[in-house]
Amino acid sequence: MVLRLNSTETGFEERFQDLLAGKREVSENVDQVVRDIIEDVRANGDRAVLDYTAKFDRLDAAGMAELTVSGQEIEKAVKEVPAETLEALQFAHDRIHAHHSRQVPRDERYTDDIGVELGTLWTAIEAVGVYVPGGLANYPSSVLMNVVPARVAGVDRIVMVVPSPDGVLNPLVLAAASVAGVTEIYRIGGAQAVAALAFGTETISPVAKIVGPGNAFVAAAKRRVFGTVGIDMIAGPSEVLIVADGDNNPDWIAADLLAQAEHDTAAQSILMTDSEDLAVQVERAVEAQLKTLPREQVARASWQDFGAIILVENLEAAMPLANRIAPEHLELAVADPEDLLKKVRNAGAVFLGHYTPEAIGDYVGGSNHVLPTARSARFSSGLSVLEFVKRTSILKCNADNLRALGPAAITLGESEGLSAHARSVSIRLNMQRRF
Amino acid sequence: MVLRLNSTETGFEERFQDLLAGKREVSENVDQVVRDIIEDVRANGDRAVLDYTAKFDRLDAAGMAELTVSGQEIEKAVKEVPAETLEALQFAHDRIHAHHSRQVPRDERYTDDIGVELGTLWTAIEAVGVYVPGGLANYPSSVLMNVVPARVAGVDRIVMVVPSPDGVLNPLVLAAASVAGVTEIYRIGGAQAVAALAFGTETISPVAKIVGPGNAFVAAAKRRVFGTVGIDMIAGPSEVLIVADGDNNPDWIAADLLAQAEHDTAAQSILMTDSEDLAVQVERAVEAQLKTLPREQVARASWQDFGAIILVENLEAAMPLANRIAPEHLELAVADPEDLLKKVRNAGAVFLGHYTPEAIGDYVGGSNHVLPTARSARFSSGLSVLEFVKRTSILKCNADNLRALGPAAITLGESEGLSAHARSVSIRLNMQRRF
Repeated sequence: MVLRLNSTETGFEERFQDLLAGKREVSENVDQVVRDIIEDVRANGDRAVLDYTAKFDRLDAAGMAELTVSGQEIEKAVKEVPAETLEALQFAHDRIHAHHSRQVPRDERYTDDIGVELGTLWTAIEAVGVYVPGGLANYPSSVLMNVVPARVAGVDRIVMVVPSPDGVLNPLVLAAASVAGVTEIYRIGGAQAVAALAFGTETISPVAKIVGPGNAFVAAAKRRVFGTVGIDMIAGPSEVLIVADGDNNPDWIAADLLAQAEHDTAAQSILMTDSEDLAVQVERAVEAQLKTLPREQVARASWQDFGAIILVENLEAAMPLANRIAPEHLELAVADPEDLLKKVRNAGAVFLGHYTPEAIGDYVGGSNHVLPTARSARFSSGLSVLEFVKRTSILKCNADNLRALGPAAITLGESEGLSAHARSVSIRLNMQRRF
Repeated sequence: MVLRLNSTETGFEERFQDLLAGKREVSENVDQVVRDIIEDVRANGDRAVLDYTAKFDRLDAAGMAELTVSGQEIEKAVKEVPAETLEALQFAHDRIHAHHSRQVPRDERYTDDIGVELGTLWTAIEAVGVYVPGGLANYPSSVLMNVVPARVAGVDRIVMVVPSPDGVLNPLVLAAASVAGVTEIYRIGGAQAVAALAFGTETISPVAKIVGPGNAFVAAAKRRVFGTVGIDMIAGPSEVLIVADGDNNPDWIAADLLAQAEHDTAAQSILMTDSEDLAVQVERAVEAQLKTLPREQVARASWQDFGAIILVENLEAAMPLANRIAPEHLELAVADPEDLLKKVRNAGAVFLGHYTPEAIGDYVGGSNHVLPTARSARFSSGLSVLEFVKRTSILKCNADNLRALGPAAITLGESEGLSAHARSVSIRLNMQRRF
């Protein structure tokens, strides 16, 4: 039976806190292994990458050339993909590209009230690595979601790494890479791929930032190379919170809950409603639909272990709870979603109304599906063009400006015991520029 | 003698790479200690914080009330600060506030060509912790730089932690906190303060993000709590690169190099010029000025160990090298800085012309002085309002939109083996909303 909470019952706050605090992932302690792999790759470059790939992916390559995906290989993969799928990929790509093109920030320059010029210059990161997992979670849509914003930002080199256990590579992933505009692809994975991207090898030039999801080894490796390169968030299992009024088709809501649950046994699907009737019917519909799902086992485990139905007095009362959950995906399946939207403080993405199932956002909505999980929407955002650019601030004074600003700077410099700071200002006020 | 390189000499590339790869910080291995402290604070809350504060700061407090800075204490501190310094702090605050107010991003909503509504909602992080180091690097200006963007963003709770070794707290730091609008202050530091902010204690409610510089323990603790809360960059020692033509006063340039060098023995000051004459004169001026600096020892160690003068053929040739250095601070002390500015790809902040010493940006320019160090300007930006807000993406389809988007989403869902994803779309195309 799925967890049922009722916000009007005593003990609710405690049970809700337990739900918030619940760990859905077992964090494996792989730190030591990962540290050794990274050190090995730093010291031995290609050789180490080849060895780990042979060991972990059972892929014996004579040299890095064999682990480099060629243009020919990509063309071949594209030909293997059904035309309908290729069209859908292109359609998704074009919508994602259009939406992200609106996110490119503009440079700014202005002169303030005392004549000082200030500004902001935005530049693209020069080289980015995109990690694509092998195996089950090997999703072409994620390739689009990670690569397109980098392309739109103007990143020069987009280097994809994707492990191919036993040599198997999903042609759809190569097709998506081709559609999205990846510039280099290596069939490597794990901590060794992260290390190769961060520090470079004889074959792979280092990148400045690494994005994309991965297993515990990949996550630990990203955390460790953070600082040498930039990284994106550490992604956790996916989650959805559906806030629904009584006027919903329970089959639709059940389908949305299961779309999340089928991702991963650690995924989380929560329904919050003020209708006891709907709650009962959705629970029943979930059971019925589960039986017909190809991924029934995964979805059932997720629903039973982490699913929840929370009954609230009214939908106003739902929003503060929703903000505490800070869900990756928030569906507002209500008559007037705009009203509730105004109360959203913490959520990765919001899906409004009855005709916006979250899966639309996964593929073809245009917005990004890489979103903050595990309550991190409290402090972070989904992937966007902003993650592939950086700001340089600009300051420009003339002699008059410096006379206006200088005395306060000198006072503060001296108050902090930084006399050379003060002097770099005073010397310009007291001494000719030409000598 | 300071390191001298010449870009036209053979062997330059190798020596330049050595300069880039040079580690200026000894990374202490404090991981195990930090992990234990964090676990202790998670398990024992206030009690653990009190114990570590007694141990590390030699500050025996009976309870957390004694470690909480009161309004009275702040008022008293403000009264201790000279009027001129307080005015300078307020002046700096107002300029920083004005500049950062321009960074507040705007919500967006639009309808695309097929009628789908998309959008972006920006919200402030609810609670932020600001770490302020005790001891030498206890700078009131850094309090302004970390707190003002959070205030401008609309953060509700801004919690400052600052260790007070032996009970000593810099009144200027409290005054700056008061001017900037900090809402809570605790006199605690180290990994225990980071843990208290991240996980909360009986006295301190948890925050969602932690910013501010600290020692190796603080940096390791931030890295470890990343994910539970957001963190800013891990700050390294400060650095400046000055690109100068021959038409400069060598004393001004020397003063700027030393303003950076006096921060820390691990700070780095580099001059890049096409004038051999200027190079010689600046080196001489640095020696002369060093002798008159209160912080001569620190500045001399930094200059001798990490300083460099790089002679280039012409200033055009300087910019690709500057971009590889990716300096925290870049001064363009040349006749036409705008021309060189166009070639900047990697830099935290740029200071244009002869009358913009970097120290102006440290205090009263209005831009932020928390900037990416150690070449991280290749992938990250200085602190801004953007670090205290987060984006929620919005998607809204009606039945017609869903009919237009649905088939591609279904195709992609099925191609990824995610049938429940596909079903959550198809069920809406095939079944009435009301039942």
